[in-house]
Amino acid sequence: MRTLYTFFRSSTSYRLRIALALKGLDWEPRFISLPRMDHRTADYMALNPQGLVPALVDDGQVFAQSLAVLEYLDETHPEPPLLPTDPAGRAYVRGLAQIIGCDIHPLNNVRVLKYLKARWQLSDDDTNEWYRHWIEEGFRSFEATLRAGCRHGRYCLGDTITIAEICLVPQVANARRFDCDLSAFPLSVEIAGAAAALPAFAEAHPSLQPDAF
Amino acid sequence: MRTLYTFFRSSTSYRLRIALALKGLDWEPRFISLPRMDHRTADYMALNPQGLVPALVDDGQVFAQSLAVLEYLDETHPEPPLLPTDPAGRAYVRGLAQIIGCDIHPLNNVRVLKYLKARWQLSDDDTNEWYRHWIEEGFRSFEATLRAGCRHGRYCLGDTITIAEICLVPQVANARRFDCDLSAFPLSVEIAGAAAALPAFAEAHPSLQPDAF
Repeated sequence: MRTLYTFFRSSTSYRLRIALALKGLDWEPRFISLPRMDHRTADYMALNPQGLVPALVDDGQVFAQSLAVLEYLDETHPEPPLLPTDPAGRAYVRGLAQIIGCDIHPLNNVRVLKYLKARWQLSDDDTNEWYRHWIEEGFRSFEATLRAGCRHGRYCLGDTITIAEICLVPQVANARRFDCDLSAFPLSVEIAGAAAALPAFAEAHPSLQPDAF
Repeated sequence: MRTLYTFFRSSTSYRLRIALALKGLDWEPRFISLPRMDHRTADYMALNPQGLVPALVDDGQVFAQSLAVLEYLDETHPEPPLLPTDPAGRAYVRGLAQIIGCDIHPLNNVRVLKYLKARWQLSDDDTNEWYRHWIEEGFRSFEATLRAGCRHGRYCLGDTITIAEICLVPQVANARRFDCDLSAFPLSVEIAGAAAALPAFAEAHPSLQPDAF
């Protein structure tokens, strides 16, 4: 049995919950509360010295960094595939996932918002503005890449779910939680909506997790 | 012939220069000056709508997001391999690369420093403190992951160069440029030093690029 160290509201944990569900893999949750700083306890740091969620324990080994874990799950459980087979298509899908994983999420992570508030006494309004700035810039980039790529169908690459939707859906959910206006990115929002309706995505939603509050 | 849109000081461009050299691939540079905002010109945005460097044009197709491009180069030119063959080893190496690619670099990117200064009138001292904070936190995580993984030799995974060093070396160079104290991370620094001495890494160094100033 594999174990996922997860926090309901962590969008990187959400990515892995979706992937595990898509692959039909059983897992046991261990709930790591970020507000309670569970991720920085000695016990958790001994397991994952990065001190971040999520972490997956599979076959006695610990895996961190959600994008790396998505590829691991895809390589160890190839069906259904989360990446196409051709190198150019794989680069396209990975690139879309990384717009979210590298250009949006790291800037809007809770640890970053906390630092901005603690170090420079920024207000909630200030950090919300910061949050929305990077959402807007990142989604502009995502939407433009989708439109330039012209490879979308129901999803980012034709009608097949890939790691692009696995990253997109949690980021859209986060953006909505921060009241971001996504109306300038209709294609991204439409794709996210279609993916979010799938059972694997729906059951991974933060609000349905046992640690949700 | 492939074309790399690069800026000498961009550490993500530096990653691709290293990988192209390791693979022994010819490329032509197109210099995109970030201070001059070349990356936001209509011409460049038409090529790469993300408006960031680097971008690689190969076989008439445009590829963005450096971590995705590293995998593309590895898949299309398998020798020498930049990832091990076993899924757990691949996840380990990708995870190390992503500590840098997702947890350090996005926060210390020039566009982020610019935003902090422009929006909140933060001083150079302030943004340098921000820069060093994420370097310290990221390298703590990288060093601890290396030590916990116990798989290092001369490099992060035994004696073979992977995408981990391709991300590490440019990040160490950037940290040094910002006078960050890396003495608490001796293993990471030692590995970066060993890799940086290799010809492919040396020739990719920012100071040796024709657009360096």
